[in-house]
Amino acid sequence: MNSFKGTEIPDIKQIKKAYEHIRKHIHQTPLMSSHQINSLLNTSIIFKCENFQKAGAFKIRGALYAVFSNIDEHKSYGITTHSSGNHAQAVALAGSMANIKVHVVMPETAPKVKTEAVKSYGGIITFCKPTLKDREKTMEKLIAQYGYKPIHSYNDTRVITGQATTSLEFLDQLEGKPDYIVAPVGGGGLLSGICITCSHISPDTKVIGAEPEMADDAYLSFKSKQFVPSVAPKTIADGLRTSLGSITMPIILEKASDILLTKETTIIRAMKLIWERMKIVVEPSAAVALAAILDNPEIFENKTTGVILTGGNIDLDNLTEYFKPNT
Amino acid sequence: MNSFKGTEIPDIKQIKKAYEHIRKHIHQTPLMSSHQINSLLNTSIIFKCENFQKAGAFKIRGALYAVFSNIDEHKSYGITTHSSGNHAQAVALAGSMANIKVHVVMPETAPKVKTEAVKSYGGIITFCKPTLKDREKTMEKLIAQYGYKPIHSYNDTRVITGQATTSLEFLDQLEGKPDYIVAPVGGGGLLSGICITCSHISPDTKVIGAEPEMADDAYLSFKSKQFVPSVAPKTIADGLRTSLGSITMPIILEKASDILLTKETTIIRAMKLIWERMKIVVEPSAAVALAAILDNPEIFENKTTGVILTGGNIDLDNLTEYFKPNT
Repeated sequence: MNSFKGTEIPDIKQIKKAYEHIRKHIHQTPLMSSHQINSLLNTSIIFKCENFQKAGAFKIRGALYAVFSNIDEHKSYGITTHSSGNHAQAVALAGSMANIKVHVVMPETAPKVKTEAVKSYGGIITFCKPTLKDREKTMEKLIAQYGYKPIHSYNDTRVITGQATTSLEFLDQLEGKPDYIVAPVGGGGLLSGICITCSHISPDTKVIGAEPEMADDAYLSFKSKQFVPSVAPKTIADGLRTSLGSITMPIILEKASDILLTKETTIIRAMKLIWERMKIVVEPSAAVALAAILDNPEIFENKTTGVILTGGNIDLDNLTEYFKPNT
Repeated sequence: MNSFKGTEIPDIKQIKKAYEHIRKHIHQTPLMSSHQINSLLNTSIIFKCENFQKAGAFKIRGALYAVFSNIDEHKSYGITTHSSGNHAQAVALAGSMANIKVHVVMPETAPKVKTEAVKSYGGIITFCKPTLKDREKTMEKLIAQYGYKPIHSYNDTRVITGQATTSLEFLDQLEGKPDYIVAPVGGGGLLSGICITCSHISPDTKVIGAEPEMADDAYLSFKSKQFVPSVAPKTIADGLRTSLGSITMPIILEKASDILLTKETTIIRAMKLIWERMKIVVEPSAAVALAAILDNPEIFENKTTGVILTGGNIDLDNLTEYFKPNT
């Protein structure tokens, strides 16, 4: 991890500055709500639709800000990263926007829709085994060979600062302040960014992480206050299989209100509810926040909750994995 | 068909009046466009997203206006209709909004998501064989038995007037006038409504119907200027299996610019493009307009085209019908 840059924890001034840098290159994604989902849960949920974001996920925010932050160096050396998908896509797109070479490491199990997207943005892919160790080793080799500068998918304060703009934009779009913001937690880049934003501009809003039971490392780390790594998690939420980072974890431990777990069957139910009721496509990882609310409805009853729909990149040809008669 | 009301062809004044009646009860649906789809076709397409409409389709517009037009009679006698799905849902919802009994006839092959929605709005369903003859016969029986007032799904000027508001709203939202508006054609309620609207407020816009090759009755009727019925069509676009009506056909013959056909494989490709690139859920019938553009790209090159995405009601548990490896 020593290869990665960016260790200074951002404050709200830096997050606002990052937003000014990236806003003309990204979409201001819409807010949506569903009368039917609200009625079902006796609550008020406002969804921040980052599935409509460029490259189909919020990840372009952090990628763009990281690329811009050291633009001359990136232009000279090129960029690398390792990622199961959305961050790889985002870095490839950010690189193509700035005319910078991008060479990413992806596990051989990454969804085809995500590897195809990386290629469509001109990114080069080296595949590796689906373990953190092999991802890191493969990337270090590329750095040694080509001299690329790395942009980590979450354990990098430039990335955290960029992802934080999701909540800055959300709070700006919303009338009033929400009681809760719930976001999925994988490596914690988004969640730590939301924690920092809210602590400054909406301190009464409780920030909650949502995590699959089958990848409960952040939950265990949060509860024990000690780092628990993610070991070969099998959750369908392919974006949430990573462990917390050395930078993201302390921020989350200090500022998050809680981390809630959710079942695999509830993730599918939440995804189906969003597709059927809201007519929008979200990927399994993005449905995890609503799933956590479905599994813990009492917390959110009669409250106003912001839910970050993180992305919409899903292989349509593998949908039988999720939707089948009698699920 | 003699049971149905509403035979006076509307003018733009009536369409505007209808819009004033219904607008507070419906969503003003957003416009979207896709850089990737535009690049692929070297064109500019603006999608009118009626998949986000109440009850998941534009049909609520016609249903509401028809229900309101004769509200006292409907309250006294209740309402019936026959429909494969979206119109049935729309009438059931419109009835529930006005506290009016709704009893619909649906073919036993109607998608479960649509029959479930009718029930959720409090509608009663009588199932019939999937032929126009059996649908009409079953409905006539209900009228004889209960005295219900019928609202036809397209061959009714109240319904045509309501559907026409889709294009009124679209043209109002758009900067400038489009070269084309393309909409799917089943019974022709929507297409005839768009024809009337454009002939008054955007006469240079060419209105084009899009139809599956496997349900080419409107195309054949348009080209021969004689009514050709739809006979047991097998298209996956379940909303477009009906024939033109005695009211809709003359309007379309007089005012539409053309009707384009599209292949079943292209309908699936179009649906996949919309889901994958735009991250929104549309049903097969709604993808037919983009499919017709994909099959006839030369017409739309360097032009501005409005495409009505008519609805988003699809059985998620039957998606393997559409999306599978190597389609």
